[in-house]
Amino acid sequence: MTEPTIDVLAIGNAIIDVIADTDDAFLAAEGMRSGSMRLIDAERAVELYGKMNPGREISGGAAANTLAGLASLGAKVAFVGQVADDQLGTIYRHDLTAAGVAFDTPAREGEPPTGRCLILVTPDGQRTMNTLLGASHYLPEDAASDELVASAKILLLEGYLWDPPEPRAAMRKAIKAARAAGRRIAFATCADFCVKTHRKDFRALIDDGLIDILFANEEEAAILEDSDAASAVETLARDVPLLVITKGPEGALAIDENGARFEVAALPVERVVDTTGAGDVFASGFLYGQVSGRSVLDSLRMGSIASAEVISHYGARPEKSLKDLVAEQL
Amino acid sequence: MTEPTIDVLAIGNAIIDVIADTDDAFLAAEGMRSGSMRLIDAERAVELYGKMNPGREISGGAAANTLAGLASLGAKVAFVGQVADDQLGTIYRHDLTAAGVAFDTPAREGEPPTGRCLILVTPDGQRTMNTLLGASHYLPEDAASDELVASAKILLLEGYLWDPPEPRAAMRKAIKAARAAGRRIAFATCADFCVKTHRKDFRALIDDGLIDILFANEEEAAILEDSDAASAVETLARDVPLLVITKGPEGALAIDENGARFEVAALPVERVVDTTGAGDVFASGFLYGQVSGRSVLDSLRMGSIASAEVISHYGARPEKSLKDLVAEQL
Repeated sequence: MTEPTIDVLAIGNAIIDVIADTDDAFLAAEGMRSGSMRLIDAERAVELYGKMNPGREISGGAAANTLAGLASLGAKVAFVGQVADDQLGTIYRHDLTAAGVAFDTPAREGEPPTGRCLILVTPDGQRTMNTLLGASHYLPEDAASDELVASAKILLLEGYLWDPPEPRAAMRKAIKAARAAGRRIAFATCADFCVKTHRKDFRALIDDGLIDILFANEEEAAILEDSDAASAVETLARDVPLLVITKGPEGALAIDENGARFEVAALPVERVVDTTGAGDVFASGFLYGQVSGRSVLDSLRMGSIASAEVISHYGARPEKSLKDLVAEQL
Repeated sequence: MTEPTIDVLAIGNAIIDVIADTDDAFLAAEGMRSGSMRLIDAERAVELYGKMNPGREISGGAAANTLAGLASLGAKVAFVGQVADDQLGTIYRHDLTAAGVAFDTPAREGEPPTGRCLILVTPDGQRTMNTLLGASHYLPEDAASDELVASAKILLLEGYLWDPPEPRAAMRKAIKAARAAGRRIAFATCADFCVKTHRKDFRALIDDGLIDILFANEEEAAILEDSDAASAVETLARDVPLLVITKGPEGALAIDENGARFEVAALPVERVVDTTGAGDVFASGFLYGQVSGRSVLDSLRMGSIASAEVISHYGARPEKSLKDLVAEQL
């Protein structure tokens, strides 16, 4: 078996974020829970977009955001995801590659268009997401070759993409290839609805020893274990080698395979503008720590530094060099 | 003749801004003069985009930005401009109408696509623009009906759009309709290259008494008059009823038909993030003052308040209510 040549390969949604300011009254009128994420269909996307304020289009997608953050830290990374052969797809590919992420999955002809996420940001910086998966749904099973998977130290999988069957098959195939090559597998649960819908599958992956690093927040952990958050974290910590629990403004927690517990506070931010991508880019910092041989605590600290940068502006990808920020702050 | 039912109608480019951070070395390597604007073709757009950092897509276009600012101040406004029937066109229409601007020009089928402007922002907030006019080129001569022109107190024309022949014909037709209906005509020279290319035409409009309010900066004034800036301003002030000269960080100046001179300083801004649209949204404040019966000095002050908001974030359209800002600050 050859040595890995890149740090992280991720399979995830290829989604353009459409970010608009709103207020709590609008969320209430549209029946949205602040801070949530849900999937919407094309009809609802048109309806909701028609009611939204002017937007900013910025490339997103959970795992892709993590990769953009990793690249900003200096890691070698690659992405597998599905855009359509349209204007938003062109923008998506440009933004990701310009961020330093290798992205070779060919665009898909015809309908549906490139996926987008209508993101409503309230004055407190909280984001509420409505995702039209679009072409992302149709990532083919063989999108990530076994060789590509084997080339990366860590395979990162995005829970959001467990929903559609073809991408799920692509992720199952990649898990096999990663295990065969002796690589680590990181998994982000992403949202409570993902865990609710796919609890059995996620739990089976854990039970089969196929997740080495699990990223979740407390709510997602609780749903996964069908218990209160505290006991869910304890149970999960016993079953995955490295558990990372993000707690928003309360920081983050990691528990390693020996049961040792590490915690960091969230870093102060002058103004929280938009929390979109906070968890994704926390994972960038944490995974960078892991691939560069840092301690679990330093990995958490890198996550905090990365998160603080991304919530201080609109959009889910870093605008400043995370490498420089880590050099200054750690 | 019926009374006007809206405040300002503008004819301008329908352009999506693609805004990316850069540094002075990149501008130098690409042979760009910091702060300039130039037109590029499709081939150069692909080449330049391929070298640019990840972008933020935010709707723009000089006159449309002015209208978005006017709507934010509470004015009734309408836009005439050409988008293509594509994803960027859909985004453009959404953003403008969601900002409160009426926009009924039908999208154009087929090539070229909706126009875009590749904007490079240096750490000092200065923007350097590379515009692919795209569908904007093909605004048909009859796009603004005489009735629509007559319905607005002020017709605003964008100098950028004087370049392509069809939109120029549309503007000439609108000028006639505005004069026939006894409306005021405002004209923004927009950029030095526009003035260089169309100096004769612009000067003829002034000589024929077809410009009531002229927006320019000192450099554009100097090119227009082929003299130094100071004497150019004096000459132009004699020939147009209301001359508005924007001077970036040094504020702005207006000279009325009696030769009275008014000046305002630029308002302090915590951090200049992106100066894109500063002049356009200065015009929003100034024109709002004019249509709401304020003095020339108060119109200038409104311009300063509007400009200060728009340079404090990425993108050329206000993110905060300009009406609220003016109520607080004036």
